[in-house]
Amino acid sequence: MPETTTMTQQQLDQLCINTIRTLSMDAVQKANSGHPGTPMGMAGIGYALWTQRLKHNPGNPLWPDRDRFVLSMGHASMLLYSLLYLTGYKVTLDDIKDFRQWESITPGHPEAKLTPGVETTTGPLGQGFGNGVGMAIAEAFLAQQFNRPGHTIVDHHIYAFCSDGDIMEGVASEAASLAGHLKLNKLIYFYDQNQISIDGDTAKTFTEDVGKRFESYDWHVQHIDGMDHTQVGPAIERAQKETGKPSLIISPTHIGYPSPNKQDTASAHGSPLGEDEVRLTKEKLDWPADEQFRIPAEALVVFRECQERGNQWEREWNEKFDAYRKEHPELAAQFERQMKGELPDGWDRDLPEFDPNDDPLATRKAGKKILGTIAKTVPNLIGGSADLVSSTGTEFPDSGSFSADDRSGRNIHFGVREHAMGSLGNGMAAHGGIIPMGSTFLIFSDYQRPTIRLAALSHFQNIFVYTHDSVGLGEDGPTHQPIEHMASLRAIPNLVTLRPADPNETTYAWKVAMERTDGPTAMALTRQGVPILDRSRYAPAEGTLRGAYVLSDADEAKAIIIATGSEVSVALAAQDALAQETIPVRVVSMPSWELFAVQDPSYRDEVLPPSITARVSVEAASTFGWERWVGQYGKKVGIDRFGASAPGKMVLTELGINTDTVVQQVKSLL
Amino acid sequence: MPETTTMTQQQLDQLCINTIRTLSMDAVQKANSGHPGTPMGMAGIGYALWTQRLKHNPGNPLWPDRDRFVLSMGHASMLLYSLLYLTGYKVTLDDIKDFRQWESITPGHPEAKLTPGVETTTGPLGQGFGNGVGMAIAEAFLAQQFNRPGHTIVDHHIYAFCSDGDIMEGVASEAASLAGHLKLNKLIYFYDQNQISIDGDTAKTFTEDVGKRFESYDWHVQHIDGMDHTQVGPAIERAQKETGKPSLIISPTHIGYPSPNKQDTASAHGSPLGEDEVRLTKEKLDWPADEQFRIPAEALVVFRECQERGNQWEREWNEKFDAYRKEHPELAAQFERQMKGELPDGWDRDLPEFDPNDDPLATRKAGKKILGTIAKTVPNLIGGSADLVSSTGTEFPDSGSFSADDRSGRNIHFGVREHAMGSLGNGMAAHGGIIPMGSTFLIFSDYQRPTIRLAALSHFQNIFVYTHDSVGLGEDGPTHQPIEHMASLRAIPNLVTLRPADPNETTYAWKVAMERTDGPTAMALTRQGVPILDRSRYAPAEGTLRGAYVLSDADEAKAIIIATGSEVSVALAAQDALAQETIPVRVVSMPSWELFAVQDPSYRDEVLPPSITARVSVEAASTFGWERWVGQYGKKVGIDRFGASAPGKMVLTELGINTDTVVQQVKSLL
Repeated sequence: MPETTTMTQQQLDQLCINTIRTLSMDAVQKANSGHPGTPMGMAGIGYALWTQRLKHNPGNPLWPDRDRFVLSMGHASMLLYSLLYLTGYKVTLDDIKDFRQWESITPGHPEAKLTPGVETTTGPLGQGFGNGVGMAIAEAFLAQQFNRPGHTIVDHHIYAFCSDGDIMEGVASEAASLAGHLKLNKLIYFYDQNQISIDGDTAKTFTEDVGKRFESYDWHVQHIDGMDHTQVGPAIERAQKETGKPSLIISPTHIGYPSPNKQDTASAHGSPLGEDEVRLTKEKLDWPADEQFRIPAEALVVFRECQERGNQWEREWNEKFDAYRKEHPELAAQFERQMKGELPDGWDRDLPEFDPNDDPLATRKAGKKILGTIAKTVPNLIGGSADLVSSTGTEFPDSGSFSADDRSGRNIHFGVREHAMGSLGNGMAAHGGIIPMGSTFLIFSDYQRPTIRLAALSHFQNIFVYTHDSVGLGEDGPTHQPIEHMASLRAIPNLVTLRPADPNETTYAWKVAMERTDGPTAMALTRQGVPILDRSRYAPAEGTLRGAYVLSDADEAKAIIIATGSEVSVALAAQDALAQETIPVRVVSMPSWELFAVQDPSYRDEVLPPSITARVSVEAASTFGWERWVGQYGKKVGIDRFGASAPGKMVLTELGINTDTVVQQVKSLL
Repeated sequence: MPETTTMTQQQLDQLCINTIRTLSMDAVQKANSGHPGTPMGMAGIGYALWTQRLKHNPGNPLWPDRDRFVLSMGHASMLLYSLLYLTGYKVTLDDIKDFRQWESITPGHPEAKLTPGVETTTGPLGQGFGNGVGMAIAEAFLAQQFNRPGHTIVDHHIYAFCSDGDIMEGVASEAASLAGHLKLNKLIYFYDQNQISIDGDTAKTFTEDVGKRFESYDWHVQHIDGMDHTQVGPAIERAQKETGKPSLIISPTHIGYPSPNKQDTASAHGSPLGEDEVRLTKEKLDWPADEQFRIPAEALVVFRECQERGNQWEREWNEKFDAYRKEHPELAAQFERQMKGELPDGWDRDLPEFDPNDDPLATRKAGKKILGTIAKTVPNLIGGSADLVSSTGTEFPDSGSFSADDRSGRNIHFGVREHAMGSLGNGMAAHGGIIPMGSTFLIFSDYQRPTIRLAALSHFQNIFVYTHDSVGLGEDGPTHQPIEHMASLRAIPNLVTLRPADPNETTYAWKVAMERTDGPTAMALTRQGVPILDRSRYAPAEGTLRGAYVLSDADEAKAIIIATGSEVSVALAAQDALAQETIPVRVVSMPSWELFAVQDPSYRDEVLPPSITARVSVEAASTFGWERWVGQYGKKVGIDRFGASAPGKMVLTELGINTDTVVQQVKSLL
């Protein structure tokens, strides 16, 4: 097609679409690694959405009222990078040429906070689907929180592209069911039904009626021809008009289109087409076969119109926001603060202090009280539980339930959907303006692993509250008793874990979680009551902020007992027992390995002097990794087997989590 | 109702059903812990199924052709324990009175291999649902493997009870979609739609049309009144007649029926009713209000008829099997061997040895070759991948795909459903006769965590093959590069992990996995090629069986480098480099921490002499936990951050996994 003559709109559209195709092919080919097929098949939908419907401003990827776009099939990253570059984000053609190379901003799968315009990290399938649902909750919550008569400052859609693999994943099923229940009508998802996955034709394994399934979730379902970009706009309009349901637009496409030998095959999915096939495909597209990274000027003009339109949208919004600020200055300030991820001044002024004269209290119950306090000063902390709020206590007492009828409710009922809860939380964090929190039993962190990791990788502030944190939960038995979970969580980079010893340490655990904006925090709380430590006798709970601290010292201590959570009381009892035998021992409370590990070496040596090698750890959990703190000559009191069903105290005692065992282990070292 | 006069059948049925109800209430009340509501609501369905339809023999819970029963909502364990005791399994009334107590056989949630008649471990929701689908695959596979014209020796159903929570879990969605696709018609699931979960009315969070959803998966869906036990039998007959689909029988029940104050509320779900309410409920049932654990003689007679009927079923089957044995002696012997979980003699005689003169080979590719060999001698090893078989290589080359049309296929296409894959594998192992195997990338072990743990807890032989085991996979980047996964897996009790150094260690890894019948094995294999170590120069790969061994020694070694997987080659290169500088160093290959940890202390001291404290570990993964082996003065070369998208070699080098770093670390210790 000669570029110099005047083209019809149809020809121009096709040129733009083929620019995405060839750019994606070329980038994958140059990297000699990647997934060309989906960008080629989805190019038309991507073009139509991004240039005609998506409300975005390439010049300001963080403009608050932009539509959010999620590429749930993250392996098709070249589709997204192509659109980012072509529409004028700060992604250059050189960045595209650097696809999948060391320190580039165009990694194999999209990473949040790395590439301008990438809203969330995707790749592990199903996660983007769930993230989008979380974004829609954030949008709905913020809209009711800030919009006022005559002032609509939050009003945008969440678009996602999903693959067959996304739709197969359980996390997507959970999220879809909840999205339908909540009538999250701002969700508009395109399902790229290309019927090809890595192992070939999906007929081998995936023959369900997806449309019917989504109707059963109460979604609005449409079918379009995914290869006809002109059907995209009208479908989006119909989806937008459906104000009571999320929308799924089922869009069959041809993976690898129009590669003569690879289209509609798995070989177009996850490998470069090969130089010959790239050439053949370009020939079919009437494209110079030997030119790489060719960007026709006419096409670029069309794409770059997004810049001016985006600027215009943002200008209009800014005007609206200025008017809003005049009428509602406090709300406007609050909106800006929330979108920046800042906490209100004095948010922590009323954090509770717990009285040692009171009865023992489970740290989950302390957590409930603390959260009740924070809820008053931090209006954008929202969340709930995967059907265990009555046990975990993560309630917002002065607020209702987030529901289809009431978007102001801060209590989110996730249902028995732990995985979706984690994924939705990540989506809320990705959206911005919200601090998400979700709770379940520590054992069920296993159901959430992929989302905890993605929160950590994406630097999302997502607060994971885990209760029933040891065999101390008792009768529910080994299926419900965490053993390896603290170790497994501690091993995740950029996750901060806390297992507070008592209610006052729990207050500081919450402080850490609230102030940690560049990553997730997980806290492990007890089911059973623990004594409220007397801080007039012991060191202040503020030591929690440093990860570990000398809770109770002894003159010329001969040994150190290091404990976490409910076992700190066991350590103190052992200290007393040893004192009776004139063996002076120091007790260190270590609620957070990660916080302690980043302290100054001098502080760490102060808490754990290298000269004292007689060290015993106590934690009602796997001893895995404790050598780090007790050293080569240390002893570890823990549980390296599965638990047992019986009253909690008995299980703890029988499995060796008791004063006698700790005393013996200390003595064995002296 | 006077017990001494003749009762109508209807009265007798009711007496039996109420015996389950009162027994469950009493046991929970005595334990002062547990879940009475579901056993009370489901008592009628349980009674009808177990006494009238379930093909089982209480006298022999392991009789091969029994129907399998799964209580997916494991918290309703008292329903199952009641049925086991009442129908005459080796579960006594004293065991029931010991519900949830230390060392009883009636723990809080059912545990496989602990209680006679408990087929699988349930509690974490959704898992039983998935296990049942795995059992149905096992049944179908074994039926085609062993049934012959005139000889039907495998022909049974899989029944499961599922709760609202089970149906909400993503793993159940994945499993249901696959079960419909595979037309597993032997599955008959009752969905206890009581609309109450721990946090109250499911209307808060779960309003999808479950029947429609399961129809979209191509299940046969029926609706009955779950409180009318007479509807159970006919529904089962209809389900059995539907030979092309799995069946879901949606059965609304009243949780806690007929507790006057707690029925249909969450307070009947997870706590004892309370003594007063138990009394009131018994009064409503026309039951002596102050008697506990009362078993009416007439009711017991009805339940215990299961014993004779079960014996009769087994006798008939034994006769059939004798006739089968006469005609097909080898098949019969093979059937018995498989059901015992034994491997054929000489199963490992053809295991490949890899030639060090050949090119470097990825351990995943070696694994493919090894599996191809084992496939020939072990006909009941079956499985596949969650849509990554082309990458993981876990193929049975001489067999087709397990499908609705061909039950003889040993290649199972799980689809992009990692969680279901793990859960189905557990179900296959629970069924018996099958050794299940499933593969995916190591990163996606996160999606399977709950199932790996349950395999370990249940002592199921389920083989988890994980490839792409480090940042060495390269360009796919941090979303796909495992870091914390080896540590996280090593922390699970009763799981054996192996990360073989080269193709010949991989052979032994498979040997371990095949011979380990009392728990799961996970192996981590490389994407990238690794050198085939020259065993004439280095120690034999058989050392793998002991977990760690001296691969390459040095006279008067001053330091030890301990490595796993692809980093063993790095360690050997470092050894050579240090030798150049006349620093003698020993290299230990440590493919399996767990196997090494259970060796004799003398062997362990031989491999890692306490006198050599200069130790360096090398593993392209989190260093979490390595202090255990390198000790207080040791150094750990690893990756304590997320990975990066770039060619694998570059990522490894840039992140410090290289000879120079290891050499420097060794020197720093000397």
